[in-house]
Amino acid sequence: MQQPDQFEQQPKCEIRRQQILDAAAECFRRSGFHGASIARISSLAGMSAGHIYHFFANKEAIIAAIVAQKVARSLEMLSRFEAEDDVFAAITNNIGPVLDEKMDPARAGIWLEVLAEAARNPEVAKIVQDADQIMRQRLLSLENTARDSRGITSQLNPEAVTEVVMAMFDGLANRSVQNPDLDKEEVARVMRVALQAILSA
Amino acid sequence: MQQPDQFEQQPKCEIRRQQILDAAAECFRRSGFHGASIARISSLAGMSAGHIYHFFANKEAIIAAIVAQKVARSLEMLSRFEAEDDVFAAITNNIGPVLDEKMDPARAGIWLEVLAEAARNPEVAKIVQDADQIMRQRLLSLENTARDSRGITSQLNPEAVTEVVMAMFDGLANRSVQNPDLDKEEVARVMRVALQAILSA
Repeated sequence: MQQPDQFEQQPKCEIRRQQILDAAAECFRRSGFHGASIARISSLAGMSAGHIYHFFANKEAIIAAIVAQKVARSLEMLSRFEAEDDVFAAITNNIGPVLDEKMDPARAGIWLEVLAEAARNPEVAKIVQDADQIMRQRLLSLENTARDSRGITSQLNPEAVTEVVMAMFDGLANRSVQNPDLDKEEVARVMRVALQAILSA
Repeated sequence: MQQPDQFEQQPKCEIRRQQILDAAAECFRRSGFHGASIARISSLAGMSAGHIYHFFANKEAIIAAIVAQKVARSLEMLSRFEAEDDVFAAITNNIGPVLDEKMDPARAGIWLEVLAEAARNPEVAKIVQDADQIMRQRLLSLENTARDSRGITSQLNPEAVTEVVMAMFDGLANRSVQNPDLDKEEVARVMRVALQAILSA
């Protein structure tokens, strides 16, 4: 058997791990967390259950990895906002990509499944809440930067502002299920007005 | 066997129906829509599966009844706002009861499960979307009344304003799972600022 070189080994392993995560996300979305067995996930991923257990101890560990990837995507978006000259304008004007992420049907579906499971499963609740704390702190810091750049002293509780910002964006995932025909462009305009108001108040 | 009189019969039937809905909601919340079998629901409700089928053809019909009750509660809240002398102030100032409803852990849990199922099950999606249309129209009409009462001509798309209002409130159900420690009073203050801004713009 040929020995894979060091450079090849890492990506192959990463590719397999990602295949499992994609298959699991699809199974969770289709059948729910409880309906998705490791057997089904392994069948969809095209590898043995043993292979899956090599990467993940259980379904909760898979959820943790899916949530971690979601956080990574969100943090990357925040980094792009942070890199802008005018952070305030960036937050309020460039929300299109955030809406696209939130309202993507497959991502909204898996996210709602994760939250529904978190509402009943303390282990998943902890995963979601730990991830949320990271996002919340980072968003709060971005909002503080935005306010500072305009010399705004908030009359509102900054943590509560962050909550409402997150509720608005997260709520759009729910809205995309409840009203798939909503006009994203018009919604973005309204979001802008709401964000400007609560960041300036 | 004693014949129940007409007045007794109706409530008894209603009580049984409600017992099934409560048991089903608890099963959906605990095990997910797919994990909750009619057998388990009937066991928790303390009646036979046959009895349940007398009221509901299948689990989707139970979901439809749960969603209908949620809509009824929401419409009742909107009616209270509509009955106020100053509708604009009512919407923006009296949001405490709406937050209580949205952030009640059991209600948030079952609602997230319904949405997650709607994201994968066209029959449940239709139930949720039909209910949403009723809520949306009624909220839009309430917002129009609020704007008219202050002589405001909206520069934003009124339907999109309704979307963002619904996203904010619905998103708070998600937030209560992600951050159970959030300060509801402070969040209500921020919501007020956001609502005033998008209803006045």
